[in-house]
Amino acid sequence: MTDNTPHQKISVAIDVLIFTVEDDTLKIVLVKRNEKPFKDLYALPGVALRESETLEEAAERSVGERTGLKNIFLEQLYTFGAIDRDPRNRTVSVAYYALTDPEKLIAVHNADGVSLVPVNEVLAGISPLAFDHREMIDYGRKRLCGKVSYSGIAFEFVPEEFTLPQLQRVYEILLGEKLYKANFRKMISPLVEETGNMLTGQAHRPSKLYRRKG
Amino acid sequence: MTDNTPHQKISVAIDVLIFTVEDDTLKIVLVKRNEKPFKDLYALPGVALRESETLEEAAERSVGERTGLKNIFLEQLYTFGAIDRDPRNRTVSVAYYALTDPEKLIAVHNADGVSLVPVNEVLAGISPLAFDHREMIDYGRKRLCGKVSYSGIAFEFVPEEFTLPQLQRVYEILLGEKLYKANFRKMISPLVEETGNMLTGQAHRPSKLYRRKG
Repeated sequence: MTDNTPHQKISVAIDVLIFTVEDDTLKIVLVKRNEKPFKDLYALPGVALRESETLEEAAERSVGERTGLKNIFLEQLYTFGAIDRDPRNRTVSVAYYALTDPEKLIAVHNADGVSLVPVNEVLAGISPLAFDHREMIDYGRKRLCGKVSYSGIAFEFVPEEFTLPQLQRVYEILLGEKLYKANFRKMISPLVEETGNMLTGQAHRPSKLYRRKG
Repeated sequence: MTDNTPHQKISVAIDVLIFTVEDDTLKIVLVKRNEKPFKDLYALPGVALRESETLEEAAERSVGERTGLKNIFLEQLYTFGAIDRDPRNRTVSVAYYALTDPEKLIAVHNADGVSLVPVNEVLAGISPLAFDHREMIDYGRKRLCGKVSYSGIAFEFVPEEFTLPQLQRVYEILLGEKLYKANFRKMISPLVEETGNMLTGQAHRPSKLYRRKG
């Protein structure tokens, strides 16, 4: 950092991709913009970074303002800096992604201008998004997919106690492919343990509930 | 990005970790600072982002100014935004890492105030670094190590034509452990092909030269 003269007029934004799995579909939280630029288009929830907060704090603030969620899984994704990505002034955006199970997102369905949208629909480009947010979501979707196999990221999408079919569906949705039950169980068995509780009710037979091994 | 009022006084810097493998050691390019803050301490080569350049262009500029290198492997690492990381003013730094084989870095050894330093020495904290650059190098070292197994990143550290023992040494240095020759060859054989040339001279018997498969 040898040439760090303060001659810049560059803003720093934080945008957050809040992913969830609902109705067997990977979805993302979008908010309708009520001001220019890109008025009436959907965008990722985002904030301008304040001088007094860290990047993570700004990401948490962004999630909290829109969804009321706190203490969810949050990780830095990538920093986007195309010169014309914001027509107002040069803005570098540090994108984060957040993962949550859909039960915690109930408030979102009621909030004004906030939607839970299938990621595939967004990526198909049916409706345009504000800024470079579609590119961000494309990038985030790939990171998520890449992380499924070698990390425990899928656990972020299920409640603390879950059935194995429930977890398998999340893996399948994130990977975009069907898994053989036997292979899935072999892969997952070192990572989970029975809670001793059963899921009952509905049209299902009672199923064993599991949790992630500590 | 709904609250993007331009009330910020935040600078954006780009810092680059230029890694190489020389004398069986993972090394990194550091530059001695000749101004405050952290005068006379070593730092990563970095620049202030200009309004008219992308993040990648700024990273390339930073590498070029210090080493004369062009068109080397460059990838975004992580964005560092601790509030007090720069005592002058709030500065968010987008860190990149660059990989190169040491032959291309000859100019660096001669340049004033530019050094090629073993990463282990830096991480051992023998001499303090400017800013949070030691943290950046720690993070970069881990990313590098993680990428060795599942990507072809090690090829960036050898010339276009290389011997298999040469490549194996790079893997060992990046992974921090000895590899069995037979295992290494099995792992690497789908990725390389013979060039038909031989490495001769020195104290060695002639060795077959390989290149990465297209």
